[in-house]
Amino acid sequence: MPLENVVSEDAEHADYIAAIDADVPAQVQQTLADYLHIRLTECGDLDADVADAAGELAEFALQGGKRIRPTFAWWGWRAVGSAEYAHSATAVLRAASAVELIQTCALVHDDLIDGSATRRGNPTMHVRFAGKHSENGWTGQPRHFGSAAAILLGDLALSWADDMLHASGLDKRELDRALGAWQAMRTEVLAGQYLDVLGQARADESTDGALRIDQLKSASYTVERPLQFGAEIGGADPRTVTALRGFGADIGVAFQLRDDLLGVFGDPEVTGKPAGDDLREGKRTLLVAEGLQRARHHGDASAVELLNSVLGDEELTRTRVADARQALTRVGAVAAVEERIATLTDSAMSALRSVELSKPAATKLAELAIAATDRMA
Amino acid sequence: MPLENVVSEDAEHADYIAAIDADVPAQVQQTLADYLHIRLTECGDLDADVADAAGELAEFALQGGKRIRPTFAWWGWRAVGSAEYAHSATAVLRAASAVELIQTCALVHDDLIDGSATRRGNPTMHVRFAGKHSENGWTGQPRHFGSAAAILLGDLALSWADDMLHASGLDKRELDRALGAWQAMRTEVLAGQYLDVLGQARADESTDGALRIDQLKSASYTVERPLQFGAEIGGADPRTVTALRGFGADIGVAFQLRDDLLGVFGDPEVTGKPAGDDLREGKRTLLVAEGLQRARHHGDASAVELLNSVLGDEELTRTRVADARQALTRVGAVAAVEERIATLTDSAMSALRSVELSKPAATKLAELAIAATDRMA
Repeated sequence: MPLENVVSEDAEHADYIAAIDADVPAQVQQTLADYLHIRLTECGDLDADVADAAGELAEFALQGGKRIRPTFAWWGWRAVGSAEYAHSATAVLRAASAVELIQTCALVHDDLIDGSATRRGNPTMHVRFAGKHSENGWTGQPRHFGSAAAILLGDLALSWADDMLHASGLDKRELDRALGAWQAMRTEVLAGQYLDVLGQARADESTDGALRIDQLKSASYTVERPLQFGAEIGGADPRTVTALRGFGADIGVAFQLRDDLLGVFGDPEVTGKPAGDDLREGKRTLLVAEGLQRARHHGDASAVELLNSVLGDEELTRTRVADARQALTRVGAVAAVEERIATLTDSAMSALRSVELSKPAATKLAELAIAATDRMA
Repeated sequence: MPLENVVSEDAEHADYIAAIDADVPAQVQQTLADYLHIRLTECGDLDADVADAAGELAEFALQGGKRIRPTFAWWGWRAVGSAEYAHSATAVLRAASAVELIQTCALVHDDLIDGSATRRGNPTMHVRFAGKHSENGWTGQPRHFGSAAAILLGDLALSWADDMLHASGLDKRELDRALGAWQAMRTEVLAGQYLDVLGQARADESTDGALRIDQLKSASYTVERPLQFGAEIGGADPRTVTALRGFGADIGVAFQLRDDLLGVFGDPEVTGKPAGDDLREGKRTLLVAEGLQRARHHGDASAVELLNSVLGDEELTRTRVADARQALTRVGAVAAVEERIATLTDSAMSALRSVELSKPAATKLAELAIAATDRMA
């Protein structure tokens, strides 16, 4: 091939990659839509009712979300920064987008387990199908039908996640390197969800328990493993993988802790959820665990009683949310969580700086970290 | 390599394969146990409570079953019969065994959807975990905890099925050929389960509806796709794949129809289930659909009323089971189903004979077909 062709091809690749860099979530959205379109056509060949149900799943998967996991996977790959892998960009984008189908399963099944009625302002999967049952006046309980459909469609999303990865076009070496992170991601999110359910059943109030769930459900599944997955596809050396995982583990927990604070102190206009929604839902966050532990330690019986009574109170008023906020602040839980976020963010940034990463990725990862953990988020 | 070494190596391979041929279910059991042992060790490194829960899943997966799907996958591979693939036997056995983990997910989630309390004489997954909740006097509802654990552990089994396939040691060409069947298998079983739930909700009594579910849930998932999966791993030519799929599709439906007959007419001492258990559970089988359709067509109102009243009657007595048997026979439903089994078995056998298959596989597949569809089964 004449040299000018190689150069122009490389330039084309660089433009193509820069276009993805510029808006990873939008590219993921398109990639997911394209893949789901193929699978829905297949379902249509099987059975019209199956295609209808799978169509609801696709709609749910495509209706929004920040695509945070595929974004970290993409930047994990970009962090490795070798030019020789330019031909893989489309395959990597597909592999990264496949992570979003794991998330679709996790959301559908989590919403069912938590009995949540809405997700991003839309009805959850079990609620949609219970609604279909009611509207059609079918036999049996709408609720039971809704649960059955949500279980099966979540399973379908999980199956399709694997299918999408293996149809991504990654070559064997890329896939083999990345499978460890992919496998860990799926096992760890399920482990985290199980520990969450178990902790609720045991009424576990320990900070250790809350932190363990944050590590598995939020940090590992949301940041650390997606980053590792992308980096391993790119053939990162062990030192880079360790640095990115360290960054991901710390920033992932920090991100969850910021979310916990916003769940109690966030402005409804910014968060899009009612004030104190996490308290109303009875979430046993690290913030609440710190609050209870510190209140007990200080002998602040009224704070203990208040926190226990607001947790899971579906009729929770604004005044009582304000009281809970005040108690969490008074016993030092808010300061403790803020301090932990600061420490984690610092150590994450050190990990990031400990290795040489390709330029746009290093900057972008630092930006993502700040956006996810900053007070203004 | 000197010729005698090649010969002795080939002879060793032949012995190894013959040992697997002799008892595929036992080999699958061992292969599954080995794989689950690795995954449980990993879970132990994550968290002791996660390891406990995953241990329950492994126990459930290993507690029996006929391993019918891995068996068909194995014989699909053996049917191709080339000597050059002898080195792949261990990898193929692992890939075939991975199908059983799809089945573990299907059983755990199906039992939850159906509200079944026992499976093979043991408590189902949601019942086990509800029991743990009660024994420990945890907070919340035992039933809710049981459902949550069953959803998450079924998901874990489904994830591990893919992991096991991709860690099987199949080479890229083998895997690439087999992935289509693997993907179809998972989508089709979920489609069949969904149509089953939907048919119940719609109180669909049509023979077409019952047959469609049998085709997806029983034939495709249980016989056709596992056979194709094995054959494609072995590099079967398109004619062989078509013949094996034809055989599998027909024998799979015949197998389900025999099961339907046994579910109503079977001897409890042989089936291990109470007499008429399918009626008690309200299963809308093709046998029942034929019964209702024929009763209506003949204007046999008492048969229609009887069949409708026994379906789903949890207090069903032996006398009423006998009445239902008599009605199904009288309206000609039993004869119609027997005839369909005979026709399907004939066409399956023709498909099997239409191509040249390796000797032990051709005989074994014919034996499996007869064992699964014969009156004496």
